[in-house]
Amino acid sequence: MCFTSKVRIAPSSQPIAPSTGAGELLQLLRDQTPRTRAELAKLTGLARSTVGARVDALLASGLLAPSGEAASTGGRPPVRFAFNPEARVVVGADLGATHGRIALTDLAGRPLCELGEDVAITDGPGTVLDWVTSTTSRMLDMTGRTTHDLIGVGIGVPGPVEHSSGRPKRPPIMPGWDNYDVPAHVGRVFDVPVLVDNDVNIMALGEHAVAHPDVEHLLFVKVATGIGAGIISGGRLHRGAVGAAGDLGHVAAPHAPEVLCSCGNLGCLEAVASGPAIMRALAEIGISASSNADIVDLVRGGNIPAAHAVRQAGRTIGEVLATCVSLLNPSVIVIGGSLAQAGESLIAGVREVVYGRSLPLATSDLQIVAATTGVQAGVIGAATMVIQHALAADRVDLAIAAQSAS
Amino acid sequence: MCFTSKVRIAPSSQPIAPSTGAGELLQLLRDQTPRTRAELAKLTGLARSTVGARVDALLASGLLAPSGEAASTGGRPPVRFAFNPEARVVVGADLGATHGRIALTDLAGRPLCELGEDVAITDGPGTVLDWVTSTTSRMLDMTGRTTHDLIGVGIGVPGPVEHSSGRPKRPPIMPGWDNYDVPAHVGRVFDVPVLVDNDVNIMALGEHAVAHPDVEHLLFVKVATGIGAGIISGGRLHRGAVGAAGDLGHVAAPHAPEVLCSCGNLGCLEAVASGPAIMRALAEIGISASSNADIVDLVRGGNIPAAHAVRQAGRTIGEVLATCVSLLNPSVIVIGGSLAQAGESLIAGVREVVYGRSLPLATSDLQIVAATTGVQAGVIGAATMVIQHALAADRVDLAIAAQSAS
Repeated sequence: MCFTSKVRIAPSSQPIAPSTGAGELLQLLRDQTPRTRAELAKLTGLARSTVGARVDALLASGLLAPSGEAASTGGRPPVRFAFNPEARVVVGADLGATHGRIALTDLAGRPLCELGEDVAITDGPGTVLDWVTSTTSRMLDMTGRTTHDLIGVGIGVPGPVEHSSGRPKRPPIMPGWDNYDVPAHVGRVFDVPVLVDNDVNIMALGEHAVAHPDVEHLLFVKVATGIGAGIISGGRLHRGAVGAAGDLGHVAAPHAPEVLCSCGNLGCLEAVASGPAIMRALAEIGISASSNADIVDLVRGGNIPAAHAVRQAGRTIGEVLATCVSLLNPSVIVIGGSLAQAGESLIAGVREVVYGRSLPLATSDLQIVAATTGVQAGVIGAATMVIQHALAADRVDLAIAAQSAS
Repeated sequence: MCFTSKVRIAPSSQPIAPSTGAGELLQLLRDQTPRTRAELAKLTGLARSTVGARVDALLASGLLAPSGEAASTGGRPPVRFAFNPEARVVVGADLGATHGRIALTDLAGRPLCELGEDVAITDGPGTVLDWVTSTTSRMLDMTGRTTHDLIGVGIGVPGPVEHSSGRPKRPPIMPGWDNYDVPAHVGRVFDVPVLVDNDVNIMALGEHAVAHPDVEHLLFVKVATGIGAGIISGGRLHRGAVGAAGDLGHVAAPHAPEVLCSCGNLGCLEAVASGPAIMRALAEIGISASSNADIVDLVRGGNIPAAHAVRQAGRTIGEVLATCVSLLNPSVIVIGGSLAQAGESLIAGVREVVYGRSLPLATSDLQIVAATTGVQAGVIGAATMVIQHALAADRVDLAIAAQSAS
C-alpha cells in the first residue's frame, strides 16, 4: 500500500548563506502553529534581521512553508509560516527473526508507503540489509521521491545493539551480525544517518508516538518468542549506559520453576513465560502448538487449558513487572508482541499480580493496556527515532549549511 | 561549621526593566567560562542590544559578575562576565527518622554552613518544620545573609512524597505527615519555592552531583532501616508518574524466605535484607545488635557471623539489583545508607549476585561502589534539587522581572 504525497516539496537546490540557529527556530514551529516573522521575533527575542535570515533558510530547505496570512494592520498582510512535514522522508525498518517490514514516512512519522515480506535474519547482514536498501529505493520511486529527499534510515533488529555505533552485540538469534557495522553497509547506498536499535525499543517509540504521545513514563513489554521491554522516561527512550536497558527476558522470575534458559542461567523470565515455554507446558498435557500464532488461535478458539497457560504466563510476567512498577513508577504499561493478541488472558494475568504486589501509591493511576499499533509499531518507531535525531536543532543547522554549500 | 562568603553579592534592589531571555543567557554562562558581550552575541545570534540588556539585568541581579578583561583590539578592553554562584543561597534539609541535617549552600551547592541535630520525625510536621525554618534563620544570620538572598528550600523526608505538591503520601514512619502541605508551612516564614522529595532521591542527587557528575545512568541504593533507590536517567532524577519511583523496599526478593513485611505483603526485600532483618538473624544465633550502628561495629570488630549476615543481605539485595541492572543498564550503582558503612561485606554480596545474574552486555562497564558523600549526600542533594529548579531559564526570567517590579 502506497500513498503519494499531495504536497509538493520546495526545490532544495537553491544556495543560501550558512546559518546557525535556524534549527532552534524550527523546534518552536514543530507545534504546528503557523506564525509570522514578527511573532517569531517577539517569541524568541531575536533581532528581526536574524529571524528573517533563519526563516529564509528554512523556506529554502522546504522544512518551513507559507501557511496563510495574518490579519493586516494596514498594508500587505504578513505571511504566516508552519513546519512542513512533507518536506523530507525517512525510512523505518523492523527486522524480526523471520519477517521484515519497511515504511517510508514523512517527518510526522506518517507512512507514505509500507511493505512486509518474509526475510530471515539468519540469512546474515549482507542479504538482509541489501533487501532494506533495495526496498527503500523501490519505495522512493513509487512515491515520486529521490534520495535527496531521504534524511535518514532507522532499523530495528531482534537482538541487543550498541546504539551509538549501530552494531549488534552478541545477538543470540542473529548469526553473522555480531559487531557488524550496519550503518556503514546501508551508508554505501544512502549517504544519510543510519540509526539502529533493538526491536523492542523501536516498538516502544512507535507505540508511544502513536497511542500515548503525552505520557511521560511508559513501559512497553513485548511478549513473543522472547520477552523484552522498552522504557520511556520523561518522554524519552531510556537506553542505559550501553544500550542494554529493558532486557527483561533474562531476569529471574520470582516463584517460577528453575528451568534452564538459553542464556545459561536458571529460571529466567523468558524460559518460563515466553511462547516456547507455553508450547512446552501445553505439550505436557497433550495439546499441540508449534508457533505463537497457534497459541493465539487456541485461546481465541476457546481452548481452556491454553487460556490457562497464557494467563499463568501473564502472572509470571506480572511478578517481574511488579518490580519494574516499584522501580520506575510508569503511568502506562503497554503489552505488545504476538502473544498479546491472545486477548485478555495474558493481560489479565499481568494485572492480577501487578496490582496485588505493588505498593498502592505506584498503582493508583497505573493503566495496563494492550498495544494498539500492531505490526506498524516497529516501523513507525524506527522512523520516529530518525526524525527525533534529524530534526534536533543542531542537526538542522548542519543540514542547512551543507545544503547551501552544495 | 560555618564559612562566610568572601565575595560580596551585588546590591539587588536596583529596579530594571522586565526582560525575557536573560535566563537562557545564564544557562550558557553556567559552564563558568567568562565571556564578553561580543562573544555572547556571536554565540547566541542575538542582537547586540538584546545581549546588552540581558547582561545588564543579570548584573543587576548579581547572578552575573565581571570577571577580568579580554585582550584589547584597540581602545578600552572589553569586560568578561561569569556566573556568580555566591549571588544567592539555598537551604537543603535532610530529615531522617530520628536525625535532621541542614546546610546553607551557594548556587554551586557548596555548603557555607551546616548543622546536624537529633530531631524525631514522629514529633510531627509542625515541630520538625519549625526547626527547619528557625535553623535556616540562624544560618542566614551567621553567614551575614538575609531572606532576600534565599532563593529556595529543599527538604528530604523518610517516606513517599508527591513531588509536584510537596505532600508526603501515606508515609509509614511519619505519623501526622500524611498529605501535609510542607511547602505552605515553610512558605509562611520564607516566601520562596519549597521543594520536597523522599530522602533516597535527594541522596541520589547529592551523590551524583558530588561524586559522579558526568555519569548519565546511575542507581543509588540506600540500605539502612529501610531499603530504597534513587534513579538518575540521562543525567536527571527519574521520579516516575507520581513520584514513587525507586521504591525497592517492597519488591519481592527472589529466593528469599516469605517473611511478613510491614506493608502486609510477604517476602519484601526490606523484610529480609534491611538492618532490622539482620538484627533478627543475629538474635537467632545469640548475637545482640539493637541498631544499624551496632551491626556496623560488629562487622568492623571482626565478628564473623555478623559479617556473614551482612554479606547474605548484600546477596539478597543483589538479586533485586540484578533485575534493576537488566531493566535500567546503569553504569554506576552506588550503595549508601548506614549499613554501607559495614565495609566491603555488604557490597561484596551485592557484586557477587549482580555480576553472576545479569547479562554480560549490561555489566561489561558496570561499577558497584560505596557512597562517598556520607551524611552530606542528603543536604547537598536537597540544595541541588532547588538550584536546578531555580536556575532553569524561565524561572530566572520571572525572578528578574519580579525584582525589577519591587
